Amino acid sequence: MNAYKNIGKMIKSDANASIISEELVNLHSKVLDYLGNYKQTPLISKVPNKEYFSFDSGTKKSRAVNKALFTANMQPIESVIQSISSKDFTNITAEEITSALYSMAIGFCSVIDLTKTGDQKTPGTFFEYFVCNWVSKMLGINPRKQVDVLNLDMSTSLPTDYIFDLGTNQPKIHLPVKTSTRERVIQVWAHQRVLDGVYGTGRFLGILVSLSETKVDQNSLEVVEICLPEQWQIYQMFIAQMKRIYYLDLPSKYRDLRNVFPPIPVYSFGEFFLEYQNKTLLSRD
Amino acid sequence: MNAYKNIGKMIKSDANASIISEELVNLHSKVLDYLGNYKQTPLISKVPNKEYFSFDSGTKKSRAVNKALFTANMQPIESVIQSISSKDFTNITAEEITSALYSMAIGFCSVIDLTKTGDQKTPGTFFEYFVCNWVSKMLGINPRKQVDVLNLDMSTSLPTDYIFDLGTNQPKIHLPVKTSTRERVIQVWAHQRVLDGVYGTGRFLGILVSLSETKVDQNSLEVVEICLPEQWQIYQMFIAQMKRIYYLDLPSKYRDLRNVFPPIPVYSFGEFFLEYQNKTLLSRD
Repeated sequence: MNAYKNIGKMIKSDANASIISEELVNLHSKVLDYLGNYKQTPLISKVPNKEYFSFDSGTKKSRAVNKALFTANMQPIESVIQSISSKDFTNITAEEITSALYSMAIGFCSVIDLTKTGDQKTPGTFFEYFVCNWVSKMLGINPRKQVDVLNLDMSTSLPTDYIFDLGTNQPKIHLPVKTSTRERVIQVWAHQRVLDGVYGTGRFLGILVSLSETKVDQNSLEVVEICLPEQWQIYQMFIAQMKRIYYLDLPSKYRDLRNVFPPIPVYSFGEFFLEYQNKTLLSRD
Repeated sequence: MNAYKNIGKMIKSDANASIISEELVNLHSKVLDYLGNYKQTPLISKVPNKEYFSFDSGTKKSRAVNKALFTANMQPIESVIQSISSKDFTNITAEEITSALYSMAIGFCSVIDLTKTGDQKTPGTFFEYFVCNWVSKMLGINPRKQVDVLNLDMSTSLPTDYIFDLGTNQPKIHLPVKTSTRERVIQVWAHQRVLDGVYGTGRFLGILVSLSETKVDQNSLEVVEICLPEQWQIYQMFIAQMKRIYYLDLPSKYRDLRNVFPPIPVYSFGEFFLEYQNKTLLSRD
């Protein structure tokens, strides 16, 4: 917990600092040691083509962990962090990045599930720091959490999710981060709408990063994914346009939104690093 | 609790039925009997010009109750319900209507606060039924909770708050209902935006009804009102336009939004009945 609080302080002072990535790796090594004490209880997956388990202390179970994505080894994690830090992705795939970052995020959240009761805030805040750190590292700049609204005789500030300012004649990035979206996700499109309205459409590119959409029934041990793709399409058509939505554990119902109308570009988070590095993400397509 | 569940069933089958108002009055009489057993502990009000107390069972305290608005007598309640039922407001003021309906709503919520722990859902659902009943009674029609989106080659349904269809060549009413708004209120404007986009601006008039914005610190017994008027102004300018926002315990910071730019028409809920009856609410101003 001390390591977590430290990371929070560091993110606030300099999200882009390389020490934060090192701290996240150290923290993950402790998380793996801790989780190694607990058995992995298989869950009954109602999600096609995905298997899940829970870390199980006997009295408590963690959230669902995707069996194919999770790795309990440090070595692949260290390779991925090394690639991100050096921005050299020649020997690494998007899938490897997604798997490594998924393992770190779900590992920490699982420790909180096993040690606290009903604590949703700590995993949520950790995941915000976690995603902010990697995005900040890739962009090479620190984010803000509010923007000024200067408008004729009005002057106020708008609290937002993370905002990255890439400089004059570059788009800015609006980065909401959520462990899961559920019914609250309309806020993401609504905030994007406000930014489009205040600053002009296209000035801010909306990029949502989410962990997963799984839900475990604690009695039956069944795992489902809660997805509302038709609602997302309505939001994308009638509220605002999100540039990208990235998942660490990508639901297939959302992935399929790439290929229908209105297309919503939903990808695994590993793709972000490659898209940004090869300049397709911010290209004027 | 049985009376509450019954009211829920009746609202779903015929929100407009006169039996529901009678049941709400009967329920309130039981609520007053129950609350009569408990002392009223004064709270330290940090809200200018408002005094609050909590019903106090010794081990539990209810939410904050506005001393000037709450009445423990049935007589004023019965007069108000009689006026609404007969749609005759000649001998009643908006303030009297607000006070009577406030007493009924906060009374039921206080009973739940004293008998359950951490139950936010029952007060919220009750308040939805409660507001829906009075609006339905005034409009003389029943609401729906979803609308169809038919759009070239797409066909889907959009879950919404209550929707009242006043018929051809009349506006329709979009009625979100919340016990308090806090940071989730952006959803109200976002839903209005979707309705404007799908059906055309002006087809749906957005009317939000809210109970109060008070928050009690359980240690210090201080009551504050949590208001974000500048955020509301940004939403009203850049997401969609709400036609009215009504409160049972109206915060002065929101009331003042009537008189600044952009004007947001925020009133006490009692005004709804008079505005609707004298046809100023739906006039084409």
